[in-house]
Order: sequence, then structure tokens, then C-alpha cells
Amino acid sequence: MVNQRADVGWQSSKSDSSGVSNSGESSKESSRCSTPVLDTDRTDRLRDKMKRRIESGDHWFSLEFFPPRTASGAVNLISRFDRMGSGGPLFIDVTWHPAGDPGSDKETSSMMIASTAVNYCGLESVLHLTCCNQTKEKITAHLNKAKRLGLKNIMALRGDPIGEDWVEEDGGFNYATDLVKHIRCEFDDYFDICVAGYPTGHPEAESYDNDLRHLKEKVDAGAHFIVTQLFFRAETFLRFVKDCRAIGITCPILPGIFPIQGYHSLRQLVKLSKLEVPEEIMQVIEPIKDNDAAIRSYGIQQAVEMCKVLLASGEVPGLHFYTLNREVATIEVLRQLGLWAEDPRRPLPWAVSAHPKRKVEDVRPIFWASRPKSYIYRTQDWDDFPNGRWGNSSSPAFGELTDYYLFYLKSKSPKEALLQMWGEELMNEGSVYEVFTNYITGQTNPSGHKVMCLPWNDDPLAPETNLLKDELEKVNRRGILTINSQPNINGKPSSDPIVGWGPAGGYVFQKAYLEFFTSSENVTALLQVLKKYEPRVNYHIVNVQGKNITNAHEMQPNAVTWGIFPGREIIQPTVVDPVSFMYWKDEAFALWIEQWAKLYEDESPSRMIIQYIHDNYFLVNLVDNDFPLDSCLWQVIEDMFATDQL
Amino acid sequence: MVNQRADVGWQSSKSDSSGVSNSGESSKESSRCSTPVLDTDRTDRLRDKMKRRIESGDHWFSLEFFPPRTASGAVNLISRFDRMGSGGPLFIDVTWHPAGDPGSDKETSSMMIASTAVNYCGLESVLHLTCCNQTKEKITAHLNKAKRLGLKNIMALRGDPIGEDWVEEDGGFNYATDLVKHIRCEFDDYFDICVAGYPTGHPEAESYDNDLRHLKEKVDAGAHFIVTQLFFRAETFLRFVKDCRAIGITCPILPGIFPIQGYHSLRQLVKLSKLEVPEEIMQVIEPIKDNDAAIRSYGIQQAVEMCKVLLASGEVPGLHFYTLNREVATIEVLRQLGLWAEDPRRPLPWAVSAHPKRKVEDVRPIFWASRPKSYIYRTQDWDDFPNGRWGNSSSPAFGELTDYYLFYLKSKSPKEALLQMWGEELMNEGSVYEVFTNYITGQTNPSGHKVMCLPWNDDPLAPETNLLKDELEKVNRRGILTINSQPNINGKPSSDPIVGWGPAGGYVFQKAYLEFFTSSENVTALLQVLKKYEPRVNYHIVNVQGKNITNAHEMQPNAVTWGIFPGREIIQPTVVDPVSFMYWKDEAFALWIEQWAKLYEDESPSRMIIQYIHDNYFLVNLVDNDFPLDSCLWQVIEDMFATDQL
Repeated sequence: MVNQRADVGWQSSKSDSSGVSNSGESSKESSRCSTPVLDTDRTDRLRDKMKRRIESGDHWFSLEFFPPRTASGAVNLISRFDRMGSGGPLFIDVTWHPAGDPGSDKETSSMMIASTAVNYCGLESVLHLTCCNQTKEKITAHLNKAKRLGLKNIMALRGDPIGEDWVEEDGGFNYATDLVKHIRCEFDDYFDICVAGYPTGHPEAESYDNDLRHLKEKVDAGAHFIVTQLFFRAETFLRFVKDCRAIGITCPILPGIFPIQGYHSLRQLVKLSKLEVPEEIMQVIEPIKDNDAAIRSYGIQQAVEMCKVLLASGEVPGLHFYTLNREVATIEVLRQLGLWAEDPRRPLPWAVSAHPKRKVEDVRPIFWASRPKSYIYRTQDWDDFPNGRWGNSSSPAFGELTDYYLFYLKSKSPKEALLQMWGEELMNEGSVYEVFTNYITGQTNPSGHKVMCLPWNDDPLAPETNLLKDELEKVNRRGILTINSQPNINGKPSSDPIVGWGPAGGYVFQKAYLEFFTSSENVTALLQVLKKYEPRVNYHIVNVQGKNITNAHEMQPNAVTWGIFPGREIIQPTVVDPVSFMYWKDEAFALWIEQWAKLYEDESPSRMIIQYIHDNYFLVNLVDNDFPLDSCLWQVIEDMFATDQL
Repeated sequence: MVNQRADVGWQSSKSDSSGVSNSGESSKESSRCSTPVLDTDRTDRLRDKMKRRIESGDHWFSLEFFPPRTASGAVNLISRFDRMGSGGPLFIDVTWHPAGDPGSDKETSSMMIASTAVNYCGLESVLHLTCCNQTKEKITAHLNKAKRLGLKNIMALRGDPIGEDWVEEDGGFNYATDLVKHIRCEFDDYFDICVAGYPTGHPEAESYDNDLRHLKEKVDAGAHFIVTQLFFRAETFLRFVKDCRAIGITCPILPGIFPIQGYHSLRQLVKLSKLEVPEEIMQVIEPIKDNDAAIRSYGIQQAVEMCKVLLASGEVPGLHFYTLNREVATIEVLRQLGLWAEDPRRPLPWAVSAHPKRKVEDVRPIFWASRPKSYIYRTQDWDDFPNGRWGNSSSPAFGELTDYYLFYLKSKSPKEALLQMWGEELMNEGSVYEVFTNYITGQTNPSGHKVMCLPWNDDPLAPETNLLKDELEKVNRRGILTINSQPNINGKPSSDPIVGWGPAGGYVFQKAYLEFFTSSENVTALLQVLKKYEPRVNYHIVNVQGKNITNAHEMQPNAVTWGIFPGREIIQPTVVDPVSFMYWKDEAFALWIEQWAKLYEDESPSRMIIQYIHDNYFLVNLVDNDFPLDSCLWQVIEDMFATDQL
């Protein structure tokens, strides 16, 4: 099959020259940060990251995507970002579609997709931008918006002219070089700029040499690195690099890799990019053109072999993949090359946002652990991010979460799938307990479906939560509807595959945490029981009206995850914070209605059951402060049931 | 013997009334603090502390001192503050001496002594202030100065008139009530105000009832609590309290306790205070008037019995002791009453300053661990105290330490004692090694003296350092001249008597730390060896010129002491901070010269030996980051010596 939009990078580039001046609009973030950050990767610019990786000989890869056509395509692409992001790309890039309102706020726009990748998926992202047939004002407006959204990198392209023939415009942008100069002129050093290189020369260029000179001009105008158009032979790229170096181009040059994934997509691509597929490839492909699996398998093998030659040459610091928005082939190539991070080191227990404003962020409330995008959304307007310590006065108001429709907050599963998982028809509260229990156990429900998500957890159980599986199953069965939990950890190495995070040579710790909905009867018994566990257990118990019962000390945050590392201050990235719990409470209760009750007809019994739980249950969180001992929280629940039965 | 100045509180008080208004000069500190503080004791005002202690039925004691006559008396008094402060007084108070330039910057002034108690000894302090024969401007100036110095509590007294007869002044202060009103008028609620009560009526009062009414006026004018003149029978005080309550005085009334310590001091006191000593006491004392020990023993017994009656009455929340600047009798009375804190809980590993500006302070560099007063002095001008995390940008410049003569920074030992400890004559560097070794072991040196202090440690070895005694002895003998160290601790209860600190139910941790001077030859070998210990061991190595060798990461502070407590963020009160190390380095090297070399004649061999060490040795600090394992720092030193010998 052919991808929806066969966007392989950018198509054209011409260049001329004009003066570059400073606008004084330089980055202030770097001097602002007073925080011991976890790793320089979080504060460096893309160019610096590349520099360090080149110096250490550590090869990287990057991934190119195009914006989706539909809203559900956007939801899918975002979860693809999450999955492919876990493999450790140095950056991703998002192509620009002049015809698709690329700078708008539509969920399918290039701008929004790139912004979501940065802000919600934590990916270093490069936004493409084409300049032909655009006014300077329009381009500047796009760049300002990109900056405001936290984008720091631009791929500067000419773009395709409208119509067949190319007519130079006076005062407009005629070449990518104009755009590079404009960016540097208006934004000084703020953006890292990438430009396109053509290993076989640009199709519209007078000659290969002429095209090389254009490339030199783009770099001289202020570009920081080059990504090339795709090619089919390693030697094509290596000769191109040699030629670039010969005329004084010294910046990184990244080969564009296109794993062949199907006959039609290859054909379309070749047509668009005016490239010739070498005879030796066509000879293999033609006979199997109707066998998608065979072509993909060949494409993977061909790409792996070419990449091996490239990496072995010593001329290639990183590989750039044209993914066509697909996962399998690219991941397989990367796996075979040993570049895919199977077990990525986490700098913090939660995924760090790539927005420059959030660079210093190193503490979050535990409540949003399974809904990080919602947390980012609700705190997007914060000027400062709590770092190191939370502190009551430094936690500004959270934004309302009424925009459940926003594509980056939506469940990955469509309504039908949710109904299959959570029940077409609920009989009573017990039906709900079953859904929670099945989510924990991974068993199929009576209608034969696995419960892969809950309104509070859009993904299957985390490996860490799996450590608590048996206990969780037991209590959910009895109406302790758990939505968040972590085991206690007393000094595991920071390299631990399940609970580890942060730099090497450290130790990580956790206090046991359990958060659940439960009936008011259970809460009455629980409050009795909790008296026995003072001051070992801290609790917050709240219902939808906001009635809040707690033994927390003067509204102080309680650090429940922390790490000790060589030569650093203590990092305490997760807290139970009484103030933000009240914001989370609104969201946690609303999810019953927004994500679950609304699946059913108004006034239907199923809907009324969920509504009843929403109206009457309490949200409870428990922290066992005595982290070196076995968690007592299960015993607390046991005692609660025992009291219940009195 | 009689004390130098028989100041038993205050002598006179009259009252009248005038309007009380608010000047708007209210405390802003309370709203500023965004820090999870360790205990409310640190942020509460004295009146609030009393309130909480009364509510919890937790009896307290307080101690009255008078300013010394001489500079060396001041040094002695400050170290008495340290010793008596460890017993846990709720506050101390310092009397006011109109004849002794009490508001000046002299080291013997009331103002300076009270300021030192607050700032350098961390004691909640009450400054006495008398108003007769003073202009309002002068009084306001004293109060402003007190506020600036961090004093928050004033004992408002009339004071003794000059000459025999009492003449009311128009527009002046004629009564303590005038002073109370003035304080409230000019400083609103800033100061906690104490006033004097006379259980047998003021000697100048027309009548007992009239005097009670004066007291009521003082309280109504804005005083927060009452301390009484001394008395000899419990019933005297209890009747007084009853009478006070009867006329509507509701604030705390603290009995002034005077343990009889000698015949002459009692006589002088009686004369000054115009009190009568009861017959039953005189009958005991007269026969033993030349036997100091017997009188003191009787005084202790008498005070204990009276205090027991007072405490048992339920009318007495706390006891106020007239110490006459002596320790033994008061401590013994408190011990027998069970009020002396034998094993005081430390809120932090270091003693917290009582200055309101430093209330939020909860992190310090480890370097000044044995010189906290110097640290406080050098950071006295900071506007904000790093709390929670240190952060490079938040560590402002340190003040110069050139004022070694300041009484609160001086060694407690006179020059002769220092020479006896550190050697009248040094033969070579080895003589210096011996001094360090003897300090560690506690053995006498060849001249028969124990080394009780070093320029970097004015006190004998801390109990915690004692844990490392054997290892320290070994390395000092070989020229690793240790000045600071701590063992690694992997999660001991916060109640641990040696290394514990902070609230109950927590766990404390430490990274092993070692700081020492050593020769450049040793440093060369050490640097070889340290390569093997990357990244486990962090080091900073610097000589007097400031040549700095380190593997510390981007100048980040390294937390070396931290604690995990129920319901709180992680507290990390001690860091190895690369920036402040360079300030400490100057001080640490200067101490060789200022405290040691200068004991000897110019050009003398002894002085030249110390000068040589100062000029050529390096100051080294080592942190073993792997706190769960046995410290590797001793092995590092062993390896260094092994390399030395190659």
C-alpha cells in the first residue's frame, strides 16, 4: 500500500544571498536555570547534542513523519511517537504541507503535530518550513508561533512552486537560502536550522556542482546541519559527503534512509523525487511486486546493508529515516543495526517534556503518572516549573480539563472497543469491579475481550505495577478500584530495568503508594483502621464534592520517589502533593463520566451505575512512609475489610 | 563568691496609659516561606511556642544571663550559651545595663550578647530594655537595631532611676507600660513582649493591689507574657498568679527561680531587690555561710522542692532561672526536675540559627561543620538562604573572614593553652602530624597536655567522628591531616543517638566524607589512584593559590547528608558544594597562619614550619558516593601510600 501522503522530505531548494543580522532575540533559558539538571541532553540544543555524539563516536538516528489527514490519524500518530520515541531517536521531524493549512491549530497541521511531539511526547523535534509563495510576514508569524509552542529546530526548505514553472519573485523567498537568512535575521541564534542536501544533485539544479554550491550557500547563511534526500547506494552518499567537504562544508551531513516498504510507495516516491531506482534493485522488486511482505523484507535487508556501509565509513554520525509514518520496517532496520534502544535509560521516572520552558522540570505529582499528557496540558501556562522541591506557594493553579476531545488527550481506543472492554451493559457496581480486576489480571472478560485500558490508564499495566499484580487483583475484586500504585523500593541500583532511572551509579527509592476509588462504607471503616497506622501512613480521602479528609502535615508535599546519584543533589521527581491532589480529584472523577458513562445512553442502567459511583465513591490515596519495611498498605486494606464486617 | 554584677532581672516598674496604634511595620517573614520546614518550632514566635507547649502540657524552662564585663568573659559566656543551649531552654534572656553602653557594638554590650545568642548560638532570646531617663528616639533606635540583628523578643522594664529619688518626666518614659505602648506603637506586632511581675508587690508600689493593677496595665498595653521577680516560697507565687487571674490577666506567668548559690550573692541580691529572705532559709544558711559547697547544695535542694510544688500546681507552664551566668546549680536543678534535655533531638544535623531571616535555612556546605559561627558570620548579609537545594546561581558571595578577633569566632582557649597543646616548639612537619594524631586519639602529648582543639575544630572530636577514630589516627600519623569527616550511613532511624536528626519516624543517610591537608607528593599519588575510583569518588583538591583539581560534575553540589521523613519532601541539609569550597579554602588555609603560626615569633623555626605547610600543602576533600557499601576512602588513602612508595 502507498502511504496517504508520499512526503519524502522536501522537494526543492534554490539559493541566493542576503545580509544576516542579529535581532537580539536570543535564548535566555540557558542562563535562567539554577537547577542541577539530570543530564546535559536535557538542556543542550540539537546542534550541541550532535556535537557531543560525534565526539564520543556514538551513532544516532532520527525519524521523519508527515502530518496525518484525519483526527484519528493524529491520535494514532501521537501514540506512534510514544512508541518510536522509546527507541531513542535523537530527533524527529515533521514535514510541512502548504496545502494542509500547516501553521494552523488544526489537529492535523504540521505545527500542531510537531508541537505535540515536543510538548506531549518529549521528543526533540524539527519542524519543516517551506517558503516559496509566502510573504515574509507569514513566515515570521509561523516562526513566532513555533517558538511560542516550544519548537527549537527548523528544516528550512524552498518547497514546491505552484504550477509547473518556477518564477522568481522580487522580495519574496525564492530559495531555501533566503529562508535560512530570514530565520537568522529575525531570530538570531534561537533556532537550530537544518537544510536539505541532494546526493545526486537537485532535479532542478543546472548541475551537480552548481547544486553543491547552493548547499554551501545555505550552510554559510546559517544552517547547522544537513539531511539528504534519499538514495539507493551508499557510495552515492559517500561521494556527496566527500564533495561537500571539498568545498568547505563542515557541518554534520545526515543520510536520508528510505527502507523500501512496498512497490507502489516506491513508484510514487520515485516520481515525486525524480530519482532513479538502480537496476539491481528493480530487478529484485519487479518479480515480487505483488508480495508486500517479500518487498518489505527485501527493503529491510537492503537498508541494513547500506547503513552498515555508511556507518563503517566513519563519515556518518547519524542516520535519518523516512518512516512514511510506519513503524515496522524502520524499527527492524534499527534493531539489526543495534541502534534501537531496547531498554532506554530514563532520566527521570516520568517522560520529560522537550519544551525548552520545561527543561528544568524535575518534580511532578504522582497523580498524573498514567496521564502525563493531561498533566502537561493542564500546566502548559505555568511560567516556572517546580524543580527540586514542590513547595506550596510555588504550585500555581492548574488549567481546567474540559477539552477531553483534544487529540493528544484522547483514548487510543474507539468507542466500540471501549464498550467491548468495559461492558456493553453493566449490571451493578460489581460489573465495574470486574472491569478493574480484568484490567489488572489481563484475563478476558465474559464477552471475550481483554481490558487493555481504563479511563485513568490508557495503556496496559506498567511493568512496575506488575510487581503488585496479585495484591491489586485481590483488592479490586472487592471494590478497591485502584487507578495508581507503586511498590516501595529501598535503594535499588539506578540501572534496574524495572524501577531504575537517572544517571549510572545511583540508587533509587520509593515509598509504597496506592490510589483507588471506593465506597463510602469502606471509607468509614478505613478511617477507623488508619488511626492504628499513624504516622506511618499518610492519606488523603476526597469525594466529588471535595470533602477532604487527610492527616497530611500542613499541606506539605510528600516525596514518594527519589534518587541518590554520584556528585549530585538528591533528585525527588515524584511527590504526593495535597494541593494538586484537589485538582487531580476533579479530573479523576470527571473521567468516570467523560470516558465511561457517556458510552451509554442517557438514563440507561449502565450509565446510572457509573453516575452512582461518580457521585458516591471516594478517591483515596495512601502512602506508606516506612519504605525500608514491607508495605503495610495491603494490611491496611485487609484491616479495613475486617472492620467492615464488624 | 558573689557574681560580678548582681543583676537579678529588673528593679522597677510603674505604669500609666496612652494610645496604642499600628505603625504598619509588621512581620513579613511568615508569608514568604515556601519551604517545608522541619518543625513549627523553627517558624513560630515565642508566644506561639508557649501556646503549643501549654496546650500539650509540656513544661519548659528559660535562662537569664547578664552581659559580661570583659572580652574574655564574652567568649566564655558564648560557649556557656552553647552548653546550656543543648539542654533545651525555650528561650534565654539578656539583661540591660544602662551604665554599660548596652546598645553598642561592644562585645560586652547587652545588644551584642543577645544578638550572638540568636545568630551564632541559635537560641530564642529575649533582650531586656529599660526606658527611664531615655528619649523615645534612643529607645526606637535600640529597637530598630535589635530588629535588624534578628531579635524578636523584648523584656520591657522601667529600670532604675538615676539618683535616689524618683521624678516623673514629662514626655519621657516613666513606667514600663510606656515602653510597652511605645513598642507596639512603633513596631506593631513585630516583637514579643515580656513584662515583670512582683509576687510580693514592687518595692516602690503603694500597695500589692496597686502593683497588680500596674501589671494588668502592662499586659493590656500589649505584653505577651510575664516573668516574675524571684521569691522563696511556692505559695507566694501561687497566690500571686491567683490574684492576677482574678483581675483578668490571662497571659502566661513564669516564676523567676533563684537557686541560692552562695551567702554573699544572696545578701547582695536581697539588698538590691528589697526582698526578705524567709526565716526558715536564713536559719539553714547562717550556720554554713562560709561553706560554699554546702550552701549551693542546699540551694539546689530548696529550688528543686519549690519547683516541684509549682509544676504540680498546674499553674506553671515553665520555669525561669536566674543563672547568675553560672551553670552548675541551674543544670542540676533542671536535671533533678527532668527538664534538662540530656539527648536533645536535632532538627537538622547542624545547629539552626534563631535569626528570623534564617528560619527557612535547611542546607549548608559541609566545610563549616566544625565552624558554624564562622559560616553564619560569612553569610550574615545573604538575603535568602538556600533551602532544599543549593543551586549554583543561588549561592551568593561569602563575606571575607578577616575578623578573627571577633569574640564569637575566637578560640575558647588562650594562647598559653594553645601552645601547650600544639607545641611550644615544632621540630618539623612530623611535629604537626603528631598534634593532629593526638587530637584524634585524645592522648597526651610529650609535654603532658591533651590536644583538645585544632584551628579548624574548637571542640573535642564529635561522637560521630569518633566512629572513624582508628582509621583517622592511622592516616593522620602519616601526614593526612584530617579536619573534617563523616562516616557513610545507609538509612539509620532519625532517632539514632549519634547520627540521627529530624522528625520521628524518619531515616537518615550520609555519604562518607573526608577532608584533609596533605603534601603535594601525596596529592600526585592520590590523583593517580583516584582514576581507579571514577565515578564512585568525587574529589576537590586545591592549594592556597587556588589551583583546583576536581572531577565534580559541572560544579553541581553533592548532597552528602539527607533524611527521609513521613509526609515530607526529602531534606538534604549538607552538601559538598564546589563554589563554596573555594571560599572555605581561603579560610581553611588562613587558619594555619592566623591561629597557629602567629603563636610563634616571626622567623622562628616553628612559624616557618607552619608557613611551609600553608604554602605547599593541598586541601583535599573526598566523597564516596556509594553510600550503601563500606566506605572506600580509607582504601583510597592506602592505595595512595602504596603508589607513593613506587
